[in-house]
Parts: sequence; C-alpha cells; structure tokens
Amino acid sequence: MTQTYLRSAGRAANQLRPVRITRGFTVHAEGSVLIEFGATRVLCTASVEERVPPHKRGSGEGWVTAEYGMLPRATHTRSDREAAKGKQSGRTQEIQRLIGRSLRAVFDLSKLGERTLTLDCDVIQADGGTRTAAITGAFVAARDAVNRLLADGKITESPIKDAVAAISVGIVNGVPLLDLEYTEDSACDTDMNVVMTGAGGFVELQGTAEGVVFSRDEMNALLDLADQGIRQLIDLQSRA
Amino acid sequence: MTQTYLRSAGRAANQLRPVRITRGFTVHAEGSVLIEFGATRVLCTASVEERVPPHKRGSGEGWVTAEYGMLPRATHTRSDREAAKGKQSGRTQEIQRLIGRSLRAVFDLSKLGERTLTLDCDVIQADGGTRTAAITGAFVAARDAVNRLLADGKITESPIKDAVAAISVGIVNGVPLLDLEYTEDSACDTDMNVVMTGAGGFVELQGTAEGVVFSRDEMNALLDLADQGIRQLIDLQSRA
Amino acid sequence: MTQTYLRSAGRAANQLRPVRITRGFTVHAEGSVLIEFGATRVLCTASVEERVPPHKRGSGEGWVTAEYGMLPRATHTRSDREAAKGKQSGRTQEIQRLIGRSLRAVFDLSKLGERTLTLDCDVIQADGGTRTAAITGAFVAARDAVNRLLADGKITESPIKDAVAAISVGIVNGVPLLDLEYTEDSACDTDMNVVMTGAGGFVELQGTAEGVVFSRDEMNALLDLADQGIRQLIDLQSRA
Amino acid sequence: MTQTYLRSAGRAANQLRPVRITRGFTVHAEGSVLIEFGATRVLCTASVEERVPPHKRGSGEGWVTAEYGMLPRATHTRSDREAAKGKQSGRTQEIQRLIGRSLRAVFDLSKLGERTLTLDCDVIQADGGTRTAAITGAFVAARDAVNRLLADGKITESPIKDAVAAISVGIVNGVPLLDLEYTEDSACDTDMNVVMTGAGGFVELQGTAEGVVFSRDEMNALLDLADQGIRQLIDLQSRA
Amino acid sequence: MTQTYLRSAGRAANQLRPVRITRGFTVHAEGSVLIEFGATRVLCTASVEERVPPHKRGSGEGWVTAEYGMLPRATHTRSDREAAKGKQSGRTQEIQRLIGRSLRAVFDLSKLGERTLTLDCDVIQADGGTRTAAITGAFVAARDAVNRLLADGKITESPIKDAVAAISVGIVNGVPLLDLEYTEDSACDTDMNVVMTGAGGFVELQGTAEGVVFSRDEMNALLDLADQGIRQLIDLQSRA
Amino acid sequence: MTQTYLRSAGRAANQLRPVRITRGFTVHAEGSVLIEFGATRVLCTASVEERVPPHKRGSGEGWVTAEYGMLPRATHTRSDREAAKGKQSGRTQEIQRLIGRSLRAVFDLSKLGERTLTLDCDVIQADGGTRTAAITGAFVAARDAVNRLLADGKITESPIKDAVAAISVGIVNGVPLLDLEYTEDSACDTDMNVVMTGAGGFVELQGTAEGVVFSRDEMNALLDLADQGIRQLIDLQSRA
Repeated sequence: MTQTYLRSAGRAANQLRPVRITRGFTVHAEGSVLIEFGATRVLCTASVEERVPPHKRGSGEGWVTAEYGMLPRATHTRSDREAAKGKQSGRTQEIQRLIGRSLRAVFDLSKLGERTLTLDCDVIQADGGTRTAAITGAFVAARDAVNRLLADGKITESPIKDAVAAISVGIVNGVPLLDLEYTEDSACDTDMNVVMTGAGGFVELQGTAEGVVFSRDEMNALLDLADQGIRQLIDLQSRA
Repeated sequence: MTQTYLRSAGRAANQLRPVRITRGFTVHAEGSVLIEFGATRVLCTASVEERVPPHKRGSGEGWVTAEYGMLPRATHTRSDREAAKGKQSGRTQEIQRLIGRSLRAVFDLSKLGERTLTLDCDVIQADGGTRTAAITGAFVAARDAVNRLLADGKITESPIKDAVAAISVGIVNGVPLLDLEYTEDSACDTDMNVVMTGAGGFVELQGTAEGVVFSRDEMNALLDLADQGIRQLIDLQSRA
Repeated sequence: MTQTYLRSAGRAANQLRPVRITRGFTVHAEGSVLIEFGATRVLCTASVEERVPPHKRGSGEGWVTAEYGMLPRATHTRSDREAAKGKQSGRTQEIQRLIGRSLRAVFDLSKLGERTLTLDCDVIQADGGTRTAAITGAFVAARDAVNRLLADGKITESPIKDAVAAISVGIVNGVPLLDLEYTEDSACDTDMNVVMTGAGGFVELQGTAEGVVFSRDEMNALLDLADQGIRQLIDLQSRA
Repeated sequence: MTQTYLRSAGRAANQLRPVRITRGFTVHAEGSVLIEFGATRVLCTASVEERVPPHKRGSGEGWVTAEYGMLPRATHTRSDREAAKGKQSGRTQEIQRLIGRSLRAVFDLSKLGERTLTLDCDVIQADGGTRTAAITGAFVAARDAVNRLLADGKITESPIKDAVAAISVGIVNGVPLLDLEYTEDSACDTDMNVVMTGAGGFVELQGTAEGVVFSRDEMNALLDLADQGIRQLIDLQSRA
Repeated sequence: MTQTYLRSAGRAANQLRPVRITRGFTVHAEGSVLIEFGATRVLCTASVEERVPPHKRGSGEGWVTAEYGMLPRATHTRSDREAAKGKQSGRTQEIQRLIGRSLRAVFDLSKLGERTLTLDCDVIQADGGTRTAAITGAFVAARDAVNRLLADGKITESPIKDAVAAISVGIVNGVPLLDLEYTEDSACDTDMNVVMTGAGGFVELQGTAEGVVFSRDEMNALLDLADQGIRQLIDLQSRA
Repeated sequence: MTQTYLRSAGRAANQLRPVRITRGFTVHAEGSVLIEFGATRVLCTASVEERVPPHKRGSGEGWVTAEYGMLPRATHTRSDREAAKGKQSGRTQEIQRLIGRSLRAVFDLSKLGERTLTLDCDVIQADGGTRTAAITGAFVAARDAVNRLLADGKITESPIKDAVAAISVGIVNGVPLLDLEYTEDSACDTDMNVVMTGAGGFVELQGTAEGVVFSRDEMNALLDLADQGIRQLIDLQSRA
C-alpha cells in the first residue's frame, strides 16, 4: 500500500503513544493505577471483597469482574452522566464485559479463594483507546491487589497465570496504524481491538468495518501491528 | 491437529447445520423471515418507519437499526423476561448493536431516504448461534422490505450494496468447528463470530478465548471455516 | 335486532375463526403450544421450576403464574419493545394478571407441590383476541407440563381440576359477534372477554363499553355467544 | 339460597355502607371530593390542564384520564410506597385505567376543548371497594371542574352526558352481598365490580372467581344488587 | 430594620399560623396524625414493623425512618405523580432524610428493640412549610405508636428522650418572619428550616439564601424567631 | 471548654488541611480544576452548552447547575456504582443540589446569556469534606469557563458577582474543629457545612446533630471557625 497518513506529533504508523503507568494513584484501593496512552487517561482500581456472586457461592473459587465509566467531561463535548440517566449505555456494558473477560483469561480463579476482585476503570480524559488502556492498566492494578493478598497471607500462590494487555489498531485512509487516537478512530475504515497475553496468545479480537469492509490481508497487517504494540505494553507493565 | 470431536447428527467439522429460511412468516411486517440454523430459530422482521432518529434528521439519509430479544423459554431453563426485569442485559445490547452495525455495512443510507428500517430479531428457540442466525435472517427480511419500498415507488434505487451473513466458529477439544450448537458453544475454548459480505470482505470479527488463549494459526483455521460457511449462507439467502 | 354486519371470510356472527393448536412447537419447555385464532398467533410455553415465590414458601403449595408479551412487529405498525423501554405497559400487566388468575382457577395448588408453573404467552402475530387465545393455549401447555410431572413421578395426582378457555365477544354496529378480529375490535361498541371452565362456570368476565353503554339484554346475548364459543374451544383443547 | 352471612354493623345483604361525599375537601384543585364508603376514604381531585396528550393534539378534542394511589398506611399493614419502589404495581395500573375509561364513557370529549381533565384518586384509608369509591367520587370532582370551566366561560356546553358510579358485589359463603368491605372481600368466592351510568347502562363489568367459579344465575343476582346500589349512589352524587 | 411586610390574615411577623393536630385521623396505623399549619395539611402515620434494615440486624437496636410524599394536586398546579414517573425527586429525598434524622435525634434506638418505626408524611394540601409540619406531626404520631408498644407490653421503657418540632423562618423584603406560607416562601430572600428539641437544642439547621446572601445578624434574628415558634409547637404537641 | 482532641498531623482545631488547587487538570472542559483538601480530591469541570433547560427557554437568562459523583473506590471500602444501580442516592442528589444553589448564588444569570454552565464534581478520593471541596473547586472551574466566554467574546461582562467557597465544621468530643477529615466526621456530635461569599455573606448553612443536640453557643463557635476557614479558601481561590 502506498498511501500515507501523517499522524500527530510525528508518530510513526507502528508507534505507540507515550504510555505512562502510575501505581498507587489513590490510597484506599488494594490496587490503584493511572494509565495514560497519550492524552487518554484512565484510573483503574482493584478492590478485593470477601464475597462472590451467587453463581460462585460455595464453589471455592473467586471471581474477577470489571466496571467501566467515563466522567461526563472526559470527552470533547459533555456526555450525560449515566448515573443521572439511570442506566449504563450499551457501549459501557460492552466495554466492561470485555475488560472482565480479558482479566479472567489470565486468572486461575480457584487460587483466588472465594473472593471478588473488582476492576473499576474510570476514564478521566478520553482521546481514543479508552478500553485498551483500561485493560492494560487494570492488569497492573489487579497484580498489585494480588500482591497485597499474598503479603497479607490470604493466599499463598498467585492466581495470575500470565500478563494481559490490549491495543487498538485500524486502517485510516488505507494505512494500518497502531494505537488510534480520537481523530484517527473517527476517521478510520476499520477499527480493531486486540487483547493478548504475555505469551502471545489471543484473548479477544474485535474488528469492525466502519464503512469499508476489510480483507484478510488487511487483518493480518493489523494483527502484526497489534502484536508489536502489545509486546511493548507487556514490557511496560512488568517494569511499572 | 490429531484430536477429534464427534458432532451430533454425524455433522462434519466444516459442515453447517441444516439452514431453513422462511419468508413471509408473519403478515404485518414489510419483511418477515424465520431463519433456522438446526434447532436455533429466530424470527427476523423488518419494519419501515417514515422517520429517523435525531442524529439523522434533516440529513436526507435513512437509518438501519436492530433490536434483539429472546423468548423466556427459548432456552433450556427459563430466563427472566427482560421487559419484566425492566432492562435489557449487556449481552442483549451487545448483540443488537452487532446486528445493526452488520446490516448498516451493506446499506447506502443516502439511498434509503429519511426513513428507518428496524430489524427485530426474536429468538423463538435457542441452540447456539442465535446472533449469527439473526444477522443472516435479518438481511433477507431487510431485502424484502427494500423490495417493497422499490415496488411502492418510495425509492427508485436499492440502498443495498451487497449481501451480508454471519456464522460462528470455534475450537472444541482442539478441533476447529463451523457453526457451533449449544453444547459445543458451552464446551469451546475459543468462540468466534464472523460477519462477511457477499464479496468476501469482513464486516465484524469477534473472537473470545474461553479459558485457553488462541494462536494466530488457530485463528486462521477458524477464518477459513467461516469463509466457507458464509459463502453457503450467502447462496442460501439469494435463493430464498 | 335487525342490524347486520358482514364479517370477513363470510364468517357468521356466532362463528369462531379457524382455531389451530400445535403442541410441542418448541423443544425446551415442559409444555409448548402455538395457538392460532385466525391470524392471531400466540406461543404459550409452560415452564416448571422447583421453587415458589415468597408468599408460598413453606406452604407445601405450588404457584401458577403467567407473563405476556407481544413481539414488536406482531402488530400492523411496529410497537416499542417493552424490554427496551424498561417497563411493561399497564395493558400487558392487566393481561398477564388475567391469564394467571384464569389458570389458577382450575388448579389445586396443594397437589402441585412447592413448584412454580410459569405460562409465557408471547404474541407472534396479532389480529384481535390475543388474551383469549393466550388463556386457551396456556391451558394446553399447562396440561402438557403437568403430564410430564406425572410421567416423571414428581406428582402422583393431577392438580388440574377442570379445563379453562376464553373468548371475546362484542357488539359491532348493534350486532353481537363471537371472537372479534382486530377490525371488529376497533369498531365495537362493547367488548367482553369471558373465561369459563369445562363445567361451564365463569372464571372471569370483563366487559367494557367503548363509546356506547350496553344493556342487560345485550350482555345476555353476548354471554350466550361466549358460552357457545367456549364449549367449542374446550372441545378443541381436549382433542389437541 | 338458604345460607346466611352476618355483616358487620347489622348491615343487610343489599345495603350500602354509609356513603359520605365532601366537596371542596382541598382548595387548589378545580374539583376536590373526599368520598367515604364506610371506612374506605378516597380523595378524588380533578385538575384541568390546557394541553392534551400527543394522540389528541390538533384534534380539537380533550382528554380525561385518571391516576390512582394508596397511601402506604391506608391498609392494615404498611405497603411499600410505589414512588420509592420506582414503579406502579399491575393492580394500580389496572385500577387507574378502569377509572379513566369509566369517566370517559360519560364525557363528550369534543365539548371539552383541547384540555385534559386528570382525576387523581388517592386512598387515605382502605376497607374494600377503593376503586368503586374512586369512580363514584371522581365523577363528582369532574362535575365540579366542568362547572368551573362553564362558569369561567372556557366552555359553553357541558361535556358530561350522564352520571357514572360504581359498586362492588360479591358472593360470600354463598350469599350475594352489595358493597363488600375488606373482610368480605378477602373471604368472597366471587367479586364483581360494576360501573353504570345514570341511565342504567353498563360501562364496565369485571367479575372474578376467587376459588369457586360462578354461575349465570349467581351473576344475575349480583347484577341486580349492583343495579340497586348504583341507583342510590347516582342519587347521592346528584344531591352532593 | 425599618422595612415592613403585611402578612395575610393580619398575622404578626413572629406569629405561627393556626396549628391543628388531629390524632387518630386514620384507623390502621399505630399512630396517625393530621397536622395543619394554616392551609398546609400533612397526614403523618407511624407504622411499627417487627424487622429492621440490614445494617441493624442482630444489633438489638431498632430503626426510625421516614418517607415523604405529596399528592399530585396538593399544590396550586398539578405536579407529576412520583410513582408514575418512576422515581422520587431530589427534593422528596432530601425532605424524607431530614424527617428521619430529626426523629432519630430524640430516640434511644436501643430501647426500641429490633423493630422499625416508619413515619409516612403525605402532604394533602400544601401552602408552605410542609417539611416542618411533617416533622412536628410525625413526632406526635411516633409518640402514639410508642405508647401503643408500651401498652402492649412490647417495650417496658419509652425510647423517646425528648420532643422534637420544626419551623421555617425567612426574610421577606428585609423582614424576618416566622412560619412562612407559600407566597412568602416564594418571595423570600432567605429561607431557614430549624429543628429543635423540647430542651431547646438544635437538631437540624438548614438556611438557604435565595438571591441575596444573609448576614450573621439576620441569622440570629431568624433563630430567635424559630426558638419562639418551636416552644409553642412543643407545647401544642404535648397538649394534643 | 477544656476538652481536647488530638488531630492527625498535629493539625490545630482551627486549621485547614493543606489545600491544593490545580487548574487545567483535564484538557477538554472549559474549566477543569482538581481540588485537594488533604487526602480529599475532587475533579471539578465546568462545561458550557449553548442551550438552557425548559424553565429558562426564551428568558434571555442562562442556568448554572451541578452534578456530583464518587468513583466506586474513592472510599475505604468499595461503594456500588450509581450508574450500575440505575439511580443516584438521596445523598448524591442532596449534594449536587447544594453545589448548584451555591454557585447560582454568585451568578447573575442574565449576564450569562441563554447558555448552561454545568459543574461536574467527581470525587477521585474521599477523606471527608467532599461537598465543601466540590463547591470551592467548582467556583474556580466556573471562573475559568467564564473567562473563556469573555475571551471568546461570547459575553462582554462577567456574570460572576462574588467568589463562593465552603467548609465543614463540627464538634468532636466537645471540641469545635475546622475542616473535618473522615475519621473526625464519623466521630462528630455535630456536623455543619457552611457556604459563604467573598463578601462574607452566608449562602448555605446546614447543621446536623449526630446523636447529641447542639446549643446556640456551640453554633456560634462553629460559625466563627467557618468564617476564618472560608476567608482563607477565598484567598486561595483568587491566587490559583
């Protein structure tokens, strides 16, 4: 493909935005991480509660779940507050279900004991990629919470089997790009969110054609980009 | 891969369940299709309304949207009725958003005029693959509704650019299978829903690892299966 | 009365529409009946659950209840989906309460054991008389579910004391008619729904004047018609 | 029938409880009536608003509607407040729809002009027969509101075509009784609510067998009782 | 301050409206009081239930709580019914929380036993001061309910430590006034609700500047007025 | 009073916690302020929208309103997410109404033009005093938004008449304290929130006795403390 697309800040097509992971961003949660993908900022907290939802009661196993929210003015124009509207949008529910599944993919729930780990991912500022930042940050918060459980002697073995991170990729004006920011996301023909483990396995793959369908070749180009990006994120998580 | 998995009714790994498409299943809707993928039965109706949602008003363009529901006893055990609970589940919303996006991918909204086409996909009986049957059947119902608009002289050119169909694929006991039924869906390690056009482009791709992550090779095997299946479905749609 | 009213399909004033009862319409429910009164089609499923609502807990008695729904495009123009609106209309609640009371009238709850029988009546296509078709069909579904409980040895004696069926009657242009279809229902001065047992006792009687009040004589003429119609329905139920 | 039933306060089987109608019970509403059927007390207010619901806009016609509520401790034991629970029960909706239909039966909406008359019927104290007291009181409140519209010159001709009132009848221990109080209502085999006009026509008739079905003869005995009772109520309304 | 303000009915600035307290207004509740502050009329019932909310279970202590409502036509123009809207307004919740806290301030919950006292305060007619009338009346209803518990031998010592009453004060056209009626409330610059005990201690103090801020001196003038008014109310309560 | 109470970090009874005001904390909002009162951190954004609520349409005046929220893990133990529960608590509504009234007290709405200024106050971390921090921070965010309107030439004169700030005061173990942190708030006998303007007028005053009533003298001591604290906050606001 010979088309070109000029990204902001001179970013290369296969380049992540600057990623910043701040642990201990708030004090009460067992894990609290502010993750930044460029101007996207998501606060991910991990809360441990000594009870499980009904479908796990008496199973000896724990549960890992996630909730997602966006502050009303995280976006360019103010969005309605979901608490005031009285319901979460379909988009919100889709994203929080995705985060929950992604985290559970790297947890051995039987080693967690009958307790629940809730990942709250709240977007402070949005500039594209909030769900992928949320997954990547939630993993770090979850790890911190697990380490506290280990330190407190509540569990003796870590239930975490592998790291997990996520990135978006997409085709804008025919050019495959890594880690879309908002203007790119709005303009893209195809948008794909990829969730992978440290070992390189796929956990979730969600590709959507926005206007123009995509081919197998394009998909492969996107997955190559995603693979590169996720390796870097996994590395950043472990160094955080 | 040398593992094997015996499917019910002696079905081959790359074989669709018997597909049946009944047009005109109910009389009031502009398009009304009962689609069956084996024991999965979904009633898809297409309703034309001469108004558009706020974001399309005055645009000269139409809108295509979908709603999904499941009768309480479509499933093995009775599920709560969403109308009685007072809200649609996250799963329901995810599915109806997926159906809507899939259908819009093959519509030129500017040729529809300022009217809305609503696809109601209601599951009468569930045995796996309800969302893929819904997309496949909704396309036929939409086409019937469009034909009525053409016949009535309300539009002069079809807004439908291509056919669209969907199928699920998954890995069960290490074996890639086409068109999962309920028992396979429950047992699978990886579950992927693929939406493609008649021309073979991807519209949506949603893969989820349930327990075990999946590799690039496995994904490719699944996409090959899906590609085969969707070609057959597109053919069945055009013959219906 | 010397007025006349020409019914569609040459139907006589005291004639039911063609009634069709299809048992085993879906596979999962303990009882599953598609009932058709002319173009009105209602799917009635009976689900057995081994628990009772709070007011019956520990009583040794069971419970019989009903829920009613209408697919959005069961009607001439599309109605909003109640699950999407987040509440059931007053009409829906009235109807499902009526179905529940009608069925309980022929059940000896003490012989059901502490279990719940839920009748889900979902209108696939509406052309007047959905509530009466629902009651008539729900009884057949309930009977099938009871027979399964007997066959499974879960109960040793049938809790069903008698059959129950329902029909609408009304006065259109001064003419008393049996089993109103939609156009008649819209045009009628008086509309009455009658629920009776096999032994000919009244279970429910709901008459409403729409515009013009009705006299005692008119009511008697309507009840005579209803009595005839219900005898035929009871006969059809037992032969189904 | 030779059975007997001793009513409280030596009341005869065909005797109404003391009825008291207090007009102008509150000051703000265009009509405000406290109606008492024995210990049952319902406040009925009629409010005039210079707008109509969407289905009447531009029709030149008005609308008459009703809402019903029960104070939490109107009953023997406290009921949950519907505003706190976030929804009106099926029973509440059934009753308010019945009140609305009953009042509309005696209104010529074209003479009301494009305005809405809302009847709020709030039960201060309940002892059986709240819906029949509500209809009977609401008519008086509606009449007062109409008289004010006439006095203010907003309409020149009354839209009220006839009076309307309602009473309950039922069979308790085999004895047909007029105007059931709570203990009778709880014990009755059959319960019927009858709404009639001043001219003696039926507006609504709702009979329900509670446990034991009822025969045509029993129904006729009940209607005779109701007819007597309603004549007295209509008389009391006109003298109020 | 030399400004003057002429109150309706020749009322002095420091004069309460006529207060009327009717005990036993309805028959079912353990305490039932109609309280009138001029044209403001609030029905306060106290209901005893032999259970406590979760946070008190097993504590040996009871709970006192309140709910507040306004009949739709208690006001000059009709307000929407909260039960029909499906939620209580922020104002309603604020007021019922205030009533609950005010009552709890004079209760020793350990002497109530594990039971709940619910004060339902429903405004029959509104003319300003509904929340202060509600608190003042609810105390009398609560006292009656406690006396019944004592009479029934369910408790041996009264949990009531002191009386509690409330009044509004405000500055209208620069003049501090006691017990604002609706027209004064609408016109006032500052509005303050004061809740005090029989011993003269403050329980709640809520002052709001409507348009013009208020000074310390003005606040002191208002508190002097409130103090006077509440002494009179406490006296009226004890004589009721 | 000779009692003593040792505050954390050696804080004096009349000493504020360290206050930090960070302007421009997020990039999209017209005003965005992170305010910290010790460990309490609230993000206050001001959003300008070119429309007003119905009661202001066509008035030529603008509107100022506020919404309040708390991230689920802002607190010691995780609280339910209000968006997931489907409604805002009474406490949330009380606080956001208080913030809105406080801000409106210093706005001349006629100078704002027909536009709405929405203050979103979201608690990132809670340690007592979230509502007073919210009011204090919201004022700074509102001022920034107003300055942008002035800079953009959308208004020519500032609608802000004075500054506004808020602080909590309370009596803990008999000692009046300024700016309660969480442990003090939980232990206090009396809790008062005071909102004042730069000119020293009261906007809101909300005092609540928690367990022990408070006297006029105690109230005066608390108001003296609040007055001191608010002067400092107003000073910090103007220097921010």
